[in-house]
Amino acid sequence: MADVGAAKINTPVVSPLAGEPIKRADAERLAGVLKAFADPARLRLLSLIQSAPEGEASVTDLTAPLGLSQPTVSHHLRILTEAGLIEREKRGVWAYYRTVPAAISAIADLLTPPRKRATRKTR
Amino acid sequence: MADVGAAKINTPVVSPLAGEPIKRADAERLAGVLKAFADPARLRLLSLIQSAPEGEASVTDLTAPLGLSQPTVSHHLRILTEAGLIEREKRGVWAYYRTVPAAISAIADLLTPPRKRATRKTR
Repeated sequence: MADVGAAKINTPVVSPLAGEPIKRADAERLAGVLKAFADPARLRLLSLIQSAPEGEASVTDLTAPLGLSQPTVSHHLRILTEAGLIEREKRGVWAYYRTVPAAISAIADLLTPPRKRATRKTR
Repeated sequence: MADVGAAKINTPVVSPLAGEPIKRADAERLAGVLKAFADPARLRLLSLIQSAPEGEASVTDLTAPLGLSQPTVSHHLRILTEAGLIEREKRGVWAYYRTVPAAISAIADLLTPPRKRATRKTR
């Protein structure tokens, strides 16, 4: 988990599809964040949080639909939080999670081939 | 490698960010393709191929800039090919690789949060 959780895109990374070779350090950071995505349970968690009422969910909201134990769900939520893909807000005794659309968009943009990206920018 | 290489998005997958829970099988397929991306050497390979003259490169073009052995480069190229992110064309004794922008875009779209995706569609 440390190998995944430590990765977070804090500074701009050149897209691997930008037309110039990506630097080794950038590739490592981007791979770390992509590893946070690249897990079926974490994709389902993102999906469940995103489709929850008001776009937020607590750990207990997520265990039953996923069919996973609370510690396992908490482990996956921690990886997603450390990668910056979701954020956690404590209210009273409960913690609520919501997705961070800007962070997710930034990753999607890095994986968008240049032609499409260029089209988007000029519009 | 089989766990990664076997994954390929052949049929449409609902985005994990679409606002309805993604199915377990879809999450597994998408995670498989994301695993192909989520590796520093493979991100650098995609980047080198994309920035090569005419957007294509052979294994021997890629070993020196990556600083990896030919079998290791071939292994990573196979994973990217099986995931559908690059394609291989044999010409004479050489094989040339190029990226598959449509496949890469499809994955980027699945990771694009709905607000941004909706904006793109309506334009």
